[in-house]
This record gives sequence, C-alpha cells and structure tokens, in this order.
Amino acid sequence: MAGRIQAVDINKVSPGLSQACADSVAVEEPLEIRLGHSTPDGRATRSISITMRTPGNDEELAAGFLFSESIVQTAGDIASIEACGPPAPDSGNQNVVKVELGPDVAVDLDRLQRHFYTTSSCGVCGKTSLEALRVIGVEPMGSNHATFDKDMLITVPDKLRSSQATFDKTGGLHAAAAFNTAGELIETMEDVGRHNAVDKVIGMLLLHGRLPAADLGLMVSGRASFELMQKALVAGMPLLAAVSAPSSLAVKLANEFDMTLVGFLRSDTFNIYAGEQRIRNDN
Amino acid sequence: MAGRIQAVDINKVSPGLSQACADSVAVEEPLEIRLGHSTPDGRATRSISITMRTPGNDEELAAGFLFSESIVQTAGDIASIEACGPPAPDSGNQNVVKVELGPDVAVDLDRLQRHFYTTSSCGVCGKTSLEALRVIGVEPMGSNHATFDKDMLITVPDKLRSSQATFDKTGGLHAAAAFNTAGELIETMEDVGRHNAVDKVIGMLLLHGRLPAADLGLMVSGRASFELMQKALVAGMPLLAAVSAPSSLAVKLANEFDMTLVGFLRSDTFNIYAGEQRIRNDN
Repeated sequence: MAGRIQAVDINKVSPGLSQACADSVAVEEPLEIRLGHSTPDGRATRSISITMRTPGNDEELAAGFLFSESIVQTAGDIASIEACGPPAPDSGNQNVVKVELGPDVAVDLDRLQRHFYTTSSCGVCGKTSLEALRVIGVEPMGSNHATFDKDMLITVPDKLRSSQATFDKTGGLHAAAAFNTAGELIETMEDVGRHNAVDKVIGMLLLHGRLPAADLGLMVSGRASFELMQKALVAGMPLLAAVSAPSSLAVKLANEFDMTLVGFLRSDTFNIYAGEQRIRNDN
Repeated sequence: MAGRIQAVDINKVSPGLSQACADSVAVEEPLEIRLGHSTPDGRATRSISITMRTPGNDEELAAGFLFSESIVQTAGDIASIEACGPPAPDSGNQNVVKVELGPDVAVDLDRLQRHFYTTSSCGVCGKTSLEALRVIGVEPMGSNHATFDKDMLITVPDKLRSSQATFDKTGGLHAAAAFNTAGELIETMEDVGRHNAVDKVIGMLLLHGRLPAADLGLMVSGRASFELMQKALVAGMPLLAAVSAPSSLAVKLANEFDMTLVGFLRSDTFNIYAGEQRIRNDN
C-alpha cells in the first residue's frame, strides 16, 4: 500500500464553514517501460512507453501493455521483468521497468497499436516531471492573478451540466469549461477524452487571443490529473476545479507552481488542495 | 451535432425484463494532427499525435494541443489550420487536421511533453482503426466462448467496489477486474489510469498462463472506450462490462469482432450494446 496513497492537507469548504483537515489522494507517477530485444546487430534496449500510473504491479502493467500491443504473445516470450531506475525523490518508487524478451522473439515495433515511441529525453529518470516543466520555461504563477468567490464557484458545476444537457444524451462525454470571476462560462467543450475537451477549450482561447488567461478558471467534469493541471498552467489559468478527486501529482504541481486546485466541487461543498489564497468569501 | 452522437440498438435489461430499444452513444474516432514547419532544408510535414476524440472543434483541439505542448506560444505562430484526409467511411468526418506554422516559428519537437511521436503507418487515413486490428492478426471471437448469467452479472459491480474499498480512500482511482462465469473476481487492479488498471489485470493473467481467457469477462469502473475493448479482444475475453457508457467505436469493435459489450451495469439493470447471445437468463 505504501507509495499508492499520499496524505495531503486540505481545506474542506461547506456553507458557512472552511475547515483545515487531513485527506488522502491517489498517487500518480510516470512509469517508463523499456524493452530489451534482439536485433540483427545484437541486443538493443528501447524506451517504448511512458504512462502516468499509480505505483504497484508495475511488472504486470508492463507485461499487459506488451501483450495488448501484440509485442508478446505468451508469458514465455518474456525472459525477465525488473524494476530499475533511481527511487523517486518523494515516494521512493522506482519508475522504470525493463522487460527483456527471449532471444528468439521477433519484435516488430511498428505493430504498436498506440503508434507511439518515446524519446530518450524523458522526465522519469533523475529529473521529476515537474522539473521537466521548468526546463521548458514554465514559471510559477505570480500574485497578480484573479481570485474567485466561494459562492460563485459552487454555481459553476450546474452551469457546466446545463450546457452539456443540450448535447450529451449519451452519458459518455467529459466536459471542460473556462469561466470568469463572475462565474460566467466563456468556452465549453465536450469529448470522450478529458484531455481533448481541455485542449479544445484552450485552443479556442488561443485562437481568440485570450491567452495567457490570468483571469479565468478551468472546470473539468471528472478527475484532476497531472496532465490537466499542466494544461491549465501553460495557459496561465490560476485555478483548476474538478467535480471529482485530484491525483497526488496534480496537487504537487499546484503547490510548486502556486496554482489553486479545487476538487469534489459538488452541490455546495468543495475541497481546496492548494492555493486557498485565491478563494474569497465575499459574504 | 452531426457526427458526434450515433444511434445504436440496445437491449435494456432489468429484473424480469429484456427490452430492445434505441439509444445513443458518443462518437469516438481517431484524429491525427500533422504539423507543417520550416527546417534548415525547407518545409517539412510531420505527424505528431493521434488521439481518440469526439469529432467537432478539431481545429481548436489541434491548436490547444500545440499550445499545451509548448510548440506554439501565440495564435500568430499558426499560419493555417485545416481539416484534411478522406471522409471516414461511417461518419463522413475528416479525421486529419494539418497545422502550418509561420515561416519564422522555430519548432523543437523534443519539447513535446508527452514525448510521443507517431509512425506514418497509422490507421487513420484510408483504413479504419478496426481494419488495423485485423492487420495484426486479431480474429473475431468464435462461438466457443463462455456465456454469462444475467443475475450473476449484476453482482459484479458490488464485488468490484468491495474489493476497492480496502484500498481506495481517495475517490480517485479506476478499477478493473477479470471475473469468471460464477461471478468470482479472478484479478482486481486499481490505477489513476483506466487503461493501466486493465493492462495490470491482463498482465497478471498473462504471467499466470491464463491467456487467452475465453472463459472470463472484464469489468471496468468507468466508461468503455475503443482502447479498453481492444485490450479485452486481444486477451481473448468475450465480454466487457462497464459501469458507465460505451463509445461508438467500442460498440463497433464489439459488433465486428463478435464480442459482448455491456454498459451502465448498475444496481440491477444494464444495457447490452452487442453480443446479447452470450447473456443467459437462468431463472
């Protein structure tokens, strides 16, 4: 269980009350899968996937990934699976797993269904994912960003659902919206993929010349992952609010880049995981 | 709205009743993003991402993706965005979008946060994603697969939740389980990523010599996407059951590969989207 759940300090906000308390979030960390295999020139090792995962059963994850992608057909195709790489600074988890295929296993990486190869310059080993963000020049938010009233904030999920109601007859779509400090939805998008709904909102803001958007918050219908938090950060949006739970790495990113992260925003309550100074109480 | 919602015929199952009726699912189709940019040798076009998305606002999706990945900084970096590629056979949607950057925009593709490049042999243009599966040798399920009793099936979500209760204190994890025709959970896994939870289950089955698993069903806590359906198919599992909605491409895959797809499996009701011949009614 160690390394899969992380304790966090939150502010639990309900009508008339804001209370500091302890809570838990699911750990989210990158896992790199490396594949050792025979080539006409000998053995080679190649990085074939980086996925954001909850640590634990990494060997099974790697084996299942290789099987699903038709790289291996039987357990016998796998000579060994082992965790490697230095322990992650916070959790001590090893975030690389190396799979050695048997010498006679022919590997056709073009078969990879996801059609993805990873570069060698990843943020997994040595550097953390957050340091990788710094490398590309993303800076922590300053203090000259908008603040958001608590009573306004609790109106946003219903507005998002209302705007969805016209389109989503399927129960199968994620929604994302940019909203201003008056609680008005500026852009709303839906997609089967949460990251796509967010990319559509941010793309619309970009094409309208509205980025960076220091005066807007981002609302998402599901959970708050590292990936969504990163998109809000790059867009200069100081607040991300989610209907459901955040991951550990979303909380960490929010803290390190001075963003506000709100989770479980439902009916008239929510949790503040980071950046409570941007939540006002006008009443 | 056209091309985003698809009509499907389902069987709605409730206690004592199974009723054929019409329903809708969210459309899921691949989108390929191509980037045209200057190089020291002139202009080049490169495929940089394939994502499963709901059609609509593809230009905004491409712009937002490029911005989030720090490939472009302003709308002025983008010279043009246009849909291209042949219309998809079913929907008529164009599933490729080409973004031309301005001549002076320096592009460093190593910056791509997702660290992913795509190969040119993708399933987007000309061939469908389903045809791509056939190319790698995946065959439709035969008739010698397990059948599942309706009263057994409705017990599985509660068992999945009970097994989660010991671990998930965070509200932030997806769960997946393999279960047999007696309704027993064989393997259960949790992860912030749905595809990871499924890969862990399938990897465990593989390493235990239990694949292909023609006698097992796969239960997932969230929605049923193309990706999850594909993983069940490759593992030889004839049934996928989801607590929430399936996508259009999940339904299509189930139909074309003769699989059973159950959605909205909650309390004592569920919808059968494909393969109802594998659902028995023993009472």
